[in-house]
Amino acid sequence: GSNTRIESDSMGTIEVPADRYWGAQTQRSLQYFAIGQDTMPREMIRAIGILKRAAASVNRDLGKLPEEKAALILQAADEVIAGTLDDHFPLRIWQTGSGTQTNMNANEVIANRAIELAGGTLGSKTPVHPNDHVNMSQSSNDTFPTAMHLAAVEQITNRLLPMLTKLRDALADKTTEFQSMIKIGRTHLMDAVPLTLGQEFSGYVSQLEKDLDRIQSTLPDLYELAIGGTAVGTGLNTHPEFADRVAQEIATLTGLPFVSAPNKFAALAGHDAIVQTSGSLKTLAASLMKIANDIRWLGSGPRCGLGELILPANEPGSSIMPGKVNPTQCEAMTMVCVQVMGNDAAIGFAGSQGNFELNVFKPMMIFNLLNSIRLLADACSSFTDYLVVGIQPNQSQIQHFLTHSLMLVTALNPHIGYDNAAKVAKKAYTENTTLRAACIELGLLTGEEFDRLVRPEEMVG
Amino acid sequence: GSNTRIESDSMGTIEVPADRYWGAQTQRSLQYFAIGQDTMPREMIRAIGILKRAAASVNRDLGKLPEEKAALILQAADEVIAGTLDDHFPLRIWQTGSGTQTNMNANEVIANRAIELAGGTLGSKTPVHPNDHVNMSQSSNDTFPTAMHLAAVEQITNRLLPMLTKLRDALADKTTEFQSMIKIGRTHLMDAVPLTLGQEFSGYVSQLEKDLDRIQSTLPDLYELAIGGTAVGTGLNTHPEFADRVAQEIATLTGLPFVSAPNKFAALAGHDAIVQTSGSLKTLAASLMKIANDIRWLGSGPRCGLGELILPANEPGSSIMPGKVNPTQCEAMTMVCVQVMGNDAAIGFAGSQGNFELNVFKPMMIFNLLNSIRLLADACSSFTDYLVVGIQPNQSQIQHFLTHSLMLVTALNPHIGYDNAAKVAKKAYTENTTLRAACIELGLLTGEEFDRLVRPEEMVG
Ligand SMILES: O=C(O)/C=C/C(=O)O
Ligand SMILES: O=C(O)/C=C/C(=O)O
Repeated sequence: GSNTRIESDSMGTIEVPADRYWGAQTQRSLQYFAIGQDTMPREMIRAIGILKRAAASVNRDLGKLPEEKAALILQAADEVIAGTLDDHFPLRIWQTGSGTQTNMNANEVIANRAIELAGGTLGSKTPVHPNDHVNMSQSSNDTFPTAMHLAAVEQITNRLLPMLTKLRDALADKTTEFQSMIKIGRTHLMDAVPLTLGQEFSGYVSQLEKDLDRIQSTLPDLYELAIGGTAVGTGLNTHPEFADRVAQEIATLTGLPFVSAPNKFAALAGHDAIVQTSGSLKTLAASLMKIANDIRWLGSGPRCGLGELILPANEPGSSIMPGKVNPTQCEAMTMVCVQVMGNDAAIGFAGSQGNFELNVFKPMMIFNLLNSIRLLADACSSFTDYLVVGIQPNQSQIQHFLTHSLMLVTALNPHIGYDNAAKVAKKAYTENTTLRAACIELGLLTGEEFDRLVRPEEMVG
Repeated sequence: GSNTRIESDSMGTIEVPADRYWGAQTQRSLQYFAIGQDTMPREMIRAIGILKRAAASVNRDLGKLPEEKAALILQAADEVIAGTLDDHFPLRIWQTGSGTQTNMNANEVIANRAIELAGGTLGSKTPVHPNDHVNMSQSSNDTFPTAMHLAAVEQITNRLLPMLTKLRDALADKTTEFQSMIKIGRTHLMDAVPLTLGQEFSGYVSQLEKDLDRIQSTLPDLYELAIGGTAVGTGLNTHPEFADRVAQEIATLTGLPFVSAPNKFAALAGHDAIVQTSGSLKTLAASLMKIANDIRWLGSGPRCGLGELILPANEPGSSIMPGKVNPTQCEAMTMVCVQVMGNDAAIGFAGSQGNFELNVFKPMMIFNLLNSIRLLADACSSFTDYLVVGIQPNQSQIQHFLTHSLMLVTALNPHIGYDNAAKVAKKAYTENTTLRAACIELGLLTGEEFDRLVRPEEMVG
């Protein structure tokens, strides 16, 4: 009918929607892999567009691809990069494990769009053929992992690291703001000796500082691109300079230091770089879990919790309990952290499943990695804007706890010994009195001596 | 030298320690698999002993094994079951993935001990041969998974379920004890409407009740034994009645309803029953994590925490802070829960790795499952004895929170509406006053009306 046109591949002909650029192989994948709703992320489509552009321009420079075909491919690839052809990339994550169908989806869309630009007939493969021209010198087995690294690096560099830095900076500001606010410490959830709220927050800053380093330390691995390996890593059907030139071209297009992977066999069959990066995201998730949990506990109450922090009241918390406000930014963040840990387990499992010359868990690996990057980046940003910058100390509560904590007794160890100090703490606890009163009653110190020795401000280092 | 003797197998001869019953194959495994320190657990050695005993007695009954050889094997197997030969089972978990070396370890030890009982020469394989007699009608591929199921069922039935029941019962006692103690509820960690401490604990009891059911529901799968499948599940070299008879004999020996697995191919190559059981242990771990966390938070303080529960003070908590007591039973329990979740991830991964006629992750699967069972059982017991039975409510703290909670305002919704009630709660919070005062000041209710409408004891259902 007029709503479809005929496309063909090596299996024969098939009808595709008339208003779509994709071809026969994409159409078959749609039929055979109607699995779930997850389609290839925008970031991957962009990365494949960049790669197809780079490959066409290098093939042209090497004299393999005629100038006019190359120009058409470049123009179509630019539209893929920009995102204006996203509606033409319908394929699921849960397809061939090499991403072949998505690579062909890109080849078909770019070819048909190029044909259209040339005034030709969609599906005619003239003047631009999806395999012969758009996929020239390439295999899915090297293009897809190349796009994986490209997408991961772009998202980490342009999205995650800035957002994580923003959170780190906001917490650092709080560290300064809370510098001299002395409060009770807690170990094992139990009252411990004092520290400052600034010291407590400085621990968070230090964790994130190191997480930034940890994530960055995984980037050089990701800069190495598989392109040029073609089907099994040997580079069959490529010009000897193709790999280096394409990597260089991608580096130029993205402004990121991509290079050609020195060993293409590992680049196709192992995805250790993806596994390692995911591991560093899991470490970040462990840090953020601790930070978000601490903050919501310190903000618990308002009357029956720890209540040392006042968290921004962004929205009503309850449909039934009037005036209730919940630490919802912490909840979004901790859910993200757990999801990232789950994604990491999936990525590790997948990364271990390479067989000989290929790992065929590629789409799900990059899907999970991009999901982790995106969730962490957005969560860091939201957590900063809607929680961290608005955190206020509850000074009276902090002071109240500090004054009443039995663990101030620790300052007396050097003077009356641990065993006597323990007696003081236990007496004060059991009789619900102060350390000072207990100390005097036990005849261990005078009130004046106690006041001189027990000074929270001298216990924080 | 006099400290060794010569043993042989199909690869040739090898020296083994003179005072050990094991033979050549065990000795080779010791050399080739010096990996880690984890050796086959006692529970597995016992299970293999039971299986070898059952197989010998069935082979005798079927007329395949001479009476006198069978009697010797039975006697040696009984010593394996009892544990007196444990020093002769030195092999690591991290060996062949089928457990062949441990099966041969058992065959060798039982054969040599039987030879000794008969007055023969160790290593002579006369009158009892490790393969021909002890392993008669068997393969490692069916014996090892049989022992896996046997060990798992015994440990769940005799250790985990009783200890979990004990914990459930102790929490049920507390539910009764705390039945009418009204306290503040917490959702999102924030003050919510009241409930009784008994209601809160009844949630724990219900979780464990269902966990008992969940774990028990996995047992029928584990009752199915692989024995009789021999090398690939076809039962080559076995009498047609062997499988059923051995399963029946094992059922008699253990008092547990073991049966012959109807499909031996799945029994050797898939370990879905182990995976499913581990999943139910993970569910239990999720429940216990919640319970242990709640209890330690409710017991936090003593002065600067929630402090609604008083936990038993079993041991000094700190080497530096005098009088500090920590919720250490909760810490042991929550560490166990996380370990069980990790073990479950490992077991799930391993369970998915069957290849054609065999899954070769058997030793690590049963090692992890037994570890989870043991840790959970012991933790439940310790948690009960040293924590739960001694939990006391801190009545004054509970009462204080209840009186001061702003969420009692929820009782006014039907009378003044959610929006007015929210105004009351916010005013009381901001001005640090009572709900009652705020209500009167806003002109919404008289003091008498407030007292009649806001009654915690009528809010707990
Ligand atoms: O939305 C609710 O009804 C409850 C919220 C809460 O527990 O805070
Ligand atoms: O053992 C210590 O020194 C500290 C213990 C604690 O933090 O409670």
